[in-house]
Order: sequence, then C-alpha cells, then structure tokens
Amino acid sequence: MFKIIKKDSGTKARLGLLTTKNGTIETPVFMPVGTIGTVKSLSPFEIYGEGFKIMLSNAYHLFLRPGTDVIEKFGSLRKFTGYGGSILTDSGGFQIFSLAKFAKIKNGGVEFMSHIDGETHFFTPERVIEIQKILDSDIMMQLDVFSGHGVKKERAEKDLDTTLRWAEKSIEAKKTGVFNRRTERKTGTGNEARYEAEKDNLLFLITQGNFFEDLREKSARIMSGLDADGYAIGGLAVGETKETMLEMLGISASNLPETKPRYIMGVGTPADIVKAVALGIDMFDCVLPTRNARNGFVFTSRGTVNIKNSVYKSETLPIDPECSCFCCKNFGAAYVRHAFMSREIFSQRLLTVHNLHFYQNLIMQIRKSIENGNFYEFYKNYD
Amino acid sequence: MFKIIKKDSGTKARLGLLTTKNGTIETPVFMPVGTIGTVKSLSPFEIYGEGFKIMLSNAYHLFLRPGTDVIEKFGSLRKFTGYGGSILTDSGGFQIFSLAKFAKIKNGGVEFMSHIDGETHFFTPERVIEIQKILDSDIMMQLDVFSGHGVKKERAEKDLDTTLRWAEKSIEAKKTGVFNRRTERKTGTGNEARYEAEKDNLLFLITQGNFFEDLREKSARIMSGLDADGYAIGGLAVGETKETMLEMLGISASNLPETKPRYIMGVGTPADIVKAVALGIDMFDCVLPTRNARNGFVFTSRGTVNIKNSVYKSETLPIDPECSCFCCKNFGAAYVRHAFMSREIFSQRLLTVHNLHFYQNLIMQIRKSIENGNFYEFYKNYD
Repeated sequence: MFKIIKKDSGTKARLGLLTTKNGTIETPVFMPVGTIGTVKSLSPFEIYGEGFKIMLSNAYHLFLRPGTDVIEKFGSLRKFTGYGGSILTDSGGFQIFSLAKFAKIKNGGVEFMSHIDGETHFFTPERVIEIQKILDSDIMMQLDVFSGHGVKKERAEKDLDTTLRWAEKSIEAKKTGVFNRRTERKTGTGNEARYEAEKDNLLFLITQGNFFEDLREKSARIMSGLDADGYAIGGLAVGETKETMLEMLGISASNLPETKPRYIMGVGTPADIVKAVALGIDMFDCVLPTRNARNGFVFTSRGTVNIKNSVYKSETLPIDPECSCFCCKNFGAAYVRHAFMSREIFSQRLLTVHNLHFYQNLIMQIRKSIENGNFYEFYKNYD
Repeated sequence: MFKIIKKDSGTKARLGLLTTKNGTIETPVFMPVGTIGTVKSLSPFEIYGEGFKIMLSNAYHLFLRPGTDVIEKFGSLRKFTGYGGSILTDSGGFQIFSLAKFAKIKNGGVEFMSHIDGETHFFTPERVIEIQKILDSDIMMQLDVFSGHGVKKERAEKDLDTTLRWAEKSIEAKKTGVFNRRTERKTGTGNEARYEAEKDNLLFLITQGNFFEDLREKSARIMSGLDADGYAIGGLAVGETKETMLEMLGISASNLPETKPRYIMGVGTPADIVKAVALGIDMFDCVLPTRNARNGFVFTSRGTVNIKNSVYKSETLPIDPECSCFCCKNFGAAYVRHAFMSREIFSQRLLTVHNLHFYQNLIMQIRKSIENGNFYEFYKNYD
C-alpha cells in the first residue's frame, strides 16, 4: 500500500508510492482542497490534468450538503464529482470543533449544530467511517477532537484521550461496520461488496496532542500500535508560531512508524512544505494556493505578489515569465489584472491554476532533489 | 465582405457569410457577450471551442478599464484577450445613456461620468472610432444616442438626428481619422498601416428611431444611403412589449439594404431570435444565456428550468439528457445543483457552457432549416 522508494541521507525526507483503490500516488504529494467535491473555480479535469492524482474533500461538509444519500445514488464521491484521481476525505473533526455553532462530546460521539442551517446532528467515529464508506473515499480519516490553540494541558489531554478512543473505534468500524453502498450493488454482490470496501478504503488516524510535547509523543506512540494505513498530524497551523508548529510536527512525525505515510493536515506555505518534508512528511493539503488566488495573491519564482499591483497595469509579459501554466502560457499580466479588477470569475480560475501549478512544481522539485540526493541543499537554500 | 448564400422563400431569413479581418463567420450568428473582453466565467478557448467565431465586447467599458493605452501595448483587444475569433465592439452609446451617472450631448459629442469612478469624459463619434481602431475591432460600432423607452417623439427625433449626424462623422473618421496602432507598426509602415486599418476594421451604423414607425423608417432609409459595412438595430428590448419590439424591428430591417448584414443589439430569448431571423436579421448578441446561467436558470429542450429545483437534488442524469455540452456530457444534475447551492464558481462555468451550447445549437438548427428550405415550419412551430 505504501512503498518507500528512497530515503534522503541528510534529512528525514523520503520518496514513496502510495497505492489507493484508484491509483498510485507519488509522495511527497500536495492535495488540492475540494471541500465539497470541487476545487474552487476549476473543473476536475483541470485538477487531474495539472498532475494532481489525489484531492481532498470533507465528509462533514458533504454529509450536510448534498447529503450522503445523494452521493450514494452516484455510487461514490468520485463518480459524483467526475474527478479521475483518488480522494481523501477529512472526517470533519476539525470543522465540527471550529465551524459548527456548538459541539458537545457525549455518549461516544459529538453533537453539533450545522453551520449551514442550524440543525443538530450527532457523529460517532463509527458513523463517520460509515459516511466515508458511502462516499467510497480512497482514504478515510478518523473522527478526531480539535482542541484549539491556547487550551490548558488538562483539556488537551482529555481531548487527546477521546481522539485515541475514537481511533480504535474507527479501525473497528472500518472492519465490521455496515457497508452502505448503493442498493443495486448491495443486493447484487452483498457480502463481497462489503469485503471489497473493507480492504480498499484506506483509513488514516489523526495524531493530536495540542502544543504539549509529551501529549504529541503519547498520541503518536499509542496510535502507532494500532492497525492504521497511514497517519495524519492534526491540530497544527491554527495560530501558533512557525517554530512551535515545526517543533510539534517533528515530535509527532518522529514517533510514527517509518513504514506508513505521514500527512500534515492544512499545511502550508511553500517554505512550510519544504521544512515538513525534511521532517519526514509525505502528504500535504492546504487552501493557501487556491484561496490566495481568489484574493489576487500569486506565487511566483520571485516571491508572492499581488495581482492588483500597478506594475502589472500595462505588463504584456505573463505574471511569471518562467512559469509554464495555462495562465502564464496564454495571458499577459495586464489582462489577468484587468479581469481581476473587473471582478471576472475567469481571473480567479487563471490565478488558481497558476498557484496550483506553482505548488505542483515545488513538489516536483522536492521529489527530484530527493531522487538526486541533493534535497538537503534544496532545503537549506529555500526560504 | 458579406455574401448571401441562400434566401428563405417563406420568410425574410437568409444564410450568409460575413468576412472580417480575422475570419469568416456563418450567419445567422449569435455573439456571446464579453463586455470587458471575457465572456463571464469562461476562457476564450472555451468560447472559440464551442463554435463561437465572433464575440461582443464594449469600447466604453474597455476605455474606462483597463484603458486603451494598456490594450494598445498588446497590439489589439484580440491579442489582449487571447480570443481566436473576431470581435465586434459596441461603441458604448447605450451604456453612456443608461449606465453612466450623467450624459450630456454638446459640442458634437457627449460628456458623461464614468459609472466606475465618477470621472468625467467626453466622447465624440470620431473619438469612439479612434478607440475602436486602437482595440483593432473586427467590427466597430458608431456612437449612437439611446433615448430610452417612453420618451416623447420630439425628443426621440432630436436624438435620432444626432445619431444620424454621428453616423456620417463615424464613416468619415473611419476613413480619415488618426490610426493609433502601437508605435512600431505606425513607424514601420506608416501610411500603409493606416490604409490597412481603413480597409479592415468594418464599421456598422446603428439605426434608431425609438418606438415611432416613421422615425425607425427615416433612420434606416437615411443610413442606407451611407457607406457602412453593416447595420445594427438599436434601442430595442428595453422595456417595451414583445409585439412592439418585433414591429419596430420589422420596420428597421425592411428599410435596410438587402446586401448588408443586419444586427439586432441585445436580443434575446430563443423565441425572439427565431422571430428576428424570419424578419431578416443576421446577427445577435444577448447576456441572457450567460447571465441566466450565473443565476441558475438553464435552457433545456424541455424549456427553462431552475437548477435549484428540488427535482434535481438526487438526479444522476444530466440536466438535459439530450444535450451534448461539456456539462451534460460529464456531470449529473445533482452535482451541478450541489455545486450551485454551495456557491461554487465552477457551477456557473458549467451552466454558462450549457446555456451557450443551447444558443449555438439553436443557431445551427436555424441555419440548417434555412439551408433545407424548411425554416418557415421551424419558425411556425417554435415557441
């Protein structure tokens, strides 16, 4: 399922191949964020065409809208969205504890109020696995508890213990839970369909521990003993300093099994990614390239620039003359700026494609330098 | 420049070929609206790929933003936008008299306040031609006066007389005005470059006359005597009844020369288009397919539907199973609805492509029925 191709000698970076039911993904990998099944402004074909063989969606959002019953009719989230690659679905633990109007842990689960319509729902770790089986996610994530930045240790440990209990329950649910695929498939090949799902839908646990070294270590060590397909590091990049983030990340990563993929959730800037790869992280997702694009912030080989900047007003050259993305190959910066200033949706598409291309290019450079044995230099010189 | 291929026997419909400096366009033709150089949400390649060989932009909007100096640096609006087809630019007469904060006719032109930043500008018919030469529009439109629905005849006639004077001045400006192409071309081949432009940038006049039969006739008759490459019918579809619109359109059209293309500005619904073709109209533009798309209104073979309609909530079939557009070929209606309800930009792209495809398909059916000699039946049965 996960094969390490090469380990870097100067850092903990590694090259790997992660095989899901829908394809084999080279790692390190960046997953564009398509929360509700769409990477904002782009078509699934554009995402796949840019070389992204895996994207991120969110089970919490999809459960609330359009509802799992709708996606079940299509057979899978993949069929619903038309995306040709693999899909990792976040459980929604983070969203429940940050977005929902309230969230109360009780009776082996969490009661929360939808951020969309105020309706009350109850999620257990088992139910969240069931939802992700219906979505037929290539990689399912366990339900976890997100404590937020700045909580006391007592609270952080209590939440961690809940997350650890839910990790075990998730693994059990993956193996034994009802598999709720669309009716015709359930009727037709009943038990076999369930067995397939058990084998194929990978499950990642989410290590937590807030900003306490021993809790981070405890989380990673205990979870390492559980039968997971991979491990995420959650609860970071939520307001702490970069130093703290990297310190916590290092502790989590170094206490996880060498042989399993490691995924840092919601990180980060290009520099964060390079540093995290050096700490042994294999998988990334972040809204930064896509959200920044929609706000006019553009990643270029000369740093981040704002498309509104008047230097672009009459610029016939592309935003980044060294870039080979759809935007830079076809349009002068002045056109992109004009479309952006005129609030044309198309400018958001162009900048989104550009920023994602920049991230993909960064990942390619990282992979290449690990392969060539000079990642340490790349890492040292990157800022 | 304009060649009539076939005339319908039962109506005034005709098939034609309109040649601009950038291509030959089959008529009747529908031109998607790309006011500022972008058909909202789509790339110029998608527009061209859907078979639209000509689009509409607006000189008034482009003059205000990004400014003609910016576009001049690219060489032409076509190069600025990357669109591979021909571009017709409206002069902005309609926009000045409807959008601008004030518009005052004086000294051979119109003073108006920008709807964007409140700055005051002065347009003469000559200046508007000059702007469109800089844009290097395939088809330039004269500056006209739009009087609005419900004005008294005296006012309508005064405005028409101004429009008629401006028509003559526009024709003169096309022939003699300064040609302000980018510097290197002007220096390099000076007079020849100007000559090329005189020959290549087509100029259409805009017949007016408000909602008075004799003024409509007067406008068309006088303009027919001027040396224009084509004729638009302006000032319609602005609040009057369908009957009045078609009546005025018929008067304008029947008093224009047979041998020149006729273009009804800003019209209309599919049924309007079929009726106008029967009255001898060759060219159309309208925001309806694109604007409706962004608001969730979808043209289908079964009529107009709202994508929000709950019948689509779990619909795995496309919005229109008979449609072969990018949206209907690749996505179930429930996915499009979900993306629309979640305010995803991508849903606006999908619906825009679909609605434009519907219009393109309508135009193809119209052309085919004229070719096959059964347009009258098509027209009679269309509602």
